[in-house]
Amino acid sequence: MPDSTWITFLTDYGLENKFIGVCHGVIARIAPAARVLDITHLVPRGDVRHGAEVLRQAVPYLPAGIHLAVVDPGVGTGRKPVVLVAGEHLIVGPDNGMLLSAADELGGVDSAYELSDPRYRLRDISTTFHGRDVFSPAAAHLAAGVAPSAMGPRVDPGSLVRLPEPVRSADAGVLRGEVLIEDRFGNLQTSLDSAFLRAEGVEIGGTVTVSTARGSRDLPFVETFGSVGEGEALVHIDSADRLALAVNLGSAADLLGLHEHDTFTLRTV
Amino acid sequence: MPDSTWITFLTDYGLENKFIGVCHGVIARIAPAARVLDITHLVPRGDVRHGAEVLRQAVPYLPAGIHLAVVDPGVGTGRKPVVLVAGEHLIVGPDNGMLLSAADELGGVDSAYELSDPRYRLRDISTTFHGRDVFSPAAAHLAAGVAPSAMGPRVDPGSLVRLPEPVRSADAGVLRGEVLIEDRFGNLQTSLDSAFLRAEGVEIGGTVTVSTARGSRDLPFVETFGSVGEGEALVHIDSADRLALAVNLGSAADLLGLHEHDTFTLRTV
Amino acid sequence: MPDSTWITFLTDYGLENKFIGVCHGVIARIAPAARVLDITHLVPRGDVRHGAEVLRQAVPYLPAGIHLAVVDPGVGTGRKPVVLVAGEHLIVGPDNGMLLSAADELGGVDSAYELSDPRYRLRDISTTFHGRDVFSPAAAHLAAGVAPSAMGPRVDPGSLVRLPEPVRSADAGVLRGEVLIEDRFGNLQTSLDSAFLRAEGVEIGGTVTVSTARGSRDLPFVETFGSVGEGEALVHIDSADRLALAVNLGSAADLLGLHEHDTFTLRTV
Repeated sequence: MPDSTWITFLTDYGLENKFIGVCHGVIARIAPAARVLDITHLVPRGDVRHGAEVLRQAVPYLPAGIHLAVVDPGVGTGRKPVVLVAGEHLIVGPDNGMLLSAADELGGVDSAYELSDPRYRLRDISTTFHGRDVFSPAAAHLAAGVAPSAMGPRVDPGSLVRLPEPVRSADAGVLRGEVLIEDRFGNLQTSLDSAFLRAEGVEIGGTVTVSTARGSRDLPFVETFGSVGEGEALVHIDSADRLALAVNLGSAADLLGLHEHDTFTLRTV
Repeated sequence: MPDSTWITFLTDYGLENKFIGVCHGVIARIAPAARVLDITHLVPRGDVRHGAEVLRQAVPYLPAGIHLAVVDPGVGTGRKPVVLVAGEHLIVGPDNGMLLSAADELGGVDSAYELSDPRYRLRDISTTFHGRDVFSPAAAHLAAGVAPSAMGPRVDPGSLVRLPEPVRSADAGVLRGEVLIEDRFGNLQTSLDSAFLRAEGVEIGGTVTVSTARGSRDLPFVETFGSVGEGEALVHIDSADRLALAVNLGSAADLLGLHEHDTFTLRTV
Repeated sequence: MPDSTWITFLTDYGLENKFIGVCHGVIARIAPAARVLDITHLVPRGDVRHGAEVLRQAVPYLPAGIHLAVVDPGVGTGRKPVVLVAGEHLIVGPDNGMLLSAADELGGVDSAYELSDPRYRLRDISTTFHGRDVFSPAAAHLAAGVAPSAMGPRVDPGSLVRLPEPVRSADAGVLRGEVLIEDRFGNLQTSLDSAFLRAEGVEIGGTVTVSTARGSRDLPFVETFGSVGEGEALVHIDSADRLALAVNLGSAADLLGLHEHDTFTLRTV
């Protein structure tokens, strides 16, 4: 892998402090020619599922290279730091479920290695900032040409931590789904993708009934936000090809009382 | 245009999600040597006038290259995606008024083309994320050397959408202006620039009366914030050479009840 | 210094506006091959001590090159714009205390120069945005190979503005410290580093009494957050090797009524 390799970078570190700059610095010192592409650093703090979903949806659009992804509430405990090889992509981060769905998206894990060789870590390892001390140095050394197998012992891909699949099922015309991502505007991306909806006969142009703990609502299934009036609710297929619940210039989360990781049912009227 | 071209990048996508990272990824895959310079991605959601003003004030300081600017509340509707040629600059985005004032600042539009050739878009076009599917690919292909005229049919520059000019007039010593940008501190940048003020005889060192819907106030016209005490209001010429209303360590917006796009009058005492 | 030099960049300009993008643009026009590494731009507005501390803690991890650091509440007044030479590092910013602790961390100031030569500034200098008009151009010209001594008259390093050292003392087993940085989660980094604690016999595994204006509390001195239950308070050594007060998934600032720049005492139970 040439020294000018891309390192894409996703964390929950926030932007208010020096953490991201310091990781960029660690990489620049080890692999000056590597180019870092920040995906986001505003994953909700410690939310591994959210981070994993964002990474999974982003990787199809990212350049081949190294994907450094650190949402790591278990830092300082026993969870393994790893690198996964997935075709021409390497995914670096904690083995806590963050990485595997992105690897699946890229064709699956070919092999995996623990990041344990001290030559590829900083000399002093803090208990709270492995992004700086373990993961960024590993990504940088990989970018500079070190083989993944040199990082540490082989890890059985079957032993890697896998998050539960999001809820998605259909029974007698009633679809059951889960909110994958709630954004700051209250838009709700769900686990129901367009292929699944098509297979179940739910199609753009109709009306669907969405039921939550708070009750049921009939919503138009439209092409885009602009198809309904201001303040009106809708469902549409979003840019990640998933059913999304939204309110034009408003908050679906507020209207429906439905939030990230909640489930709901949907049927055609 | 060489492959190492600058692409400057302004949107209202926010930083909490994957949108900006994905656009960077799309660019990196098409034009690996292009360098992306982020202007800001925190334009208020859907506020085309705000975005256009920020871009216009930024471009004189940006390197020649491609300026990718996407504030696009009409995504998925009929508005045209375009590239404007302005000297050695190319401006890429939706034809909704976002682009033209920046082009004016760069000497005016020499020619314009619709971004319609499918070779320079992603294969699947979503209804909501043309930043990823249409605009970033176009910017990247332009950076990689594709001619603007290859992007699609020529567009008559006279037909491009132009935002109304901000309010700025003078009548019998009473100046009328508009708030262009309100920042998060409550500082108010106005449409009255220093040349206009000079021509009307309003000069640093005097006192001006500013009238809004809430009433009138006499404010000192000073060099800089530090010229008045903490909590005191002032007017000054800001770094974009425009009259600004401010409160030293406070909020002029709160004090005056004056916000973005509001108008006011000003006269010397 | 080659043209591909790193320029690291820290400010309190925020990300909502065009300021950071414009500074990047100014640099790109003067030194196209320079690479800018953003540390953070969310230093609390005008908080020189906070900015200086963040820079000091970051520099050991940054590549050699130019460190551009602008937290500058005195912009437009008499404070000098300077470049400090510290080994193979150059530090550029206002002489208001921002720069000196970082220089100390890098081995001390070898020499210093005022940034006064108009060839290395923009032509028009605003009263409020020296980041754009003075500091970014200076950093870029330095990156492009201009010698620091060409920037302007030599400045006596002994005359540079130095912030007061943070409170840190020990008397009869009672340690006195100061909160250096409060983060948005309410974690409190203090001025007591691990070497100081060790010398005073305060060690991981024990319990300490922390006293503030609001009262006293006994806290466990543990390895990491996970060592205590959710909502429980603790002290630990953070990734900058300093004693930090924290609450697992909560706010130590709220619990203790203790904030940035406040002092406290600590003794072993």
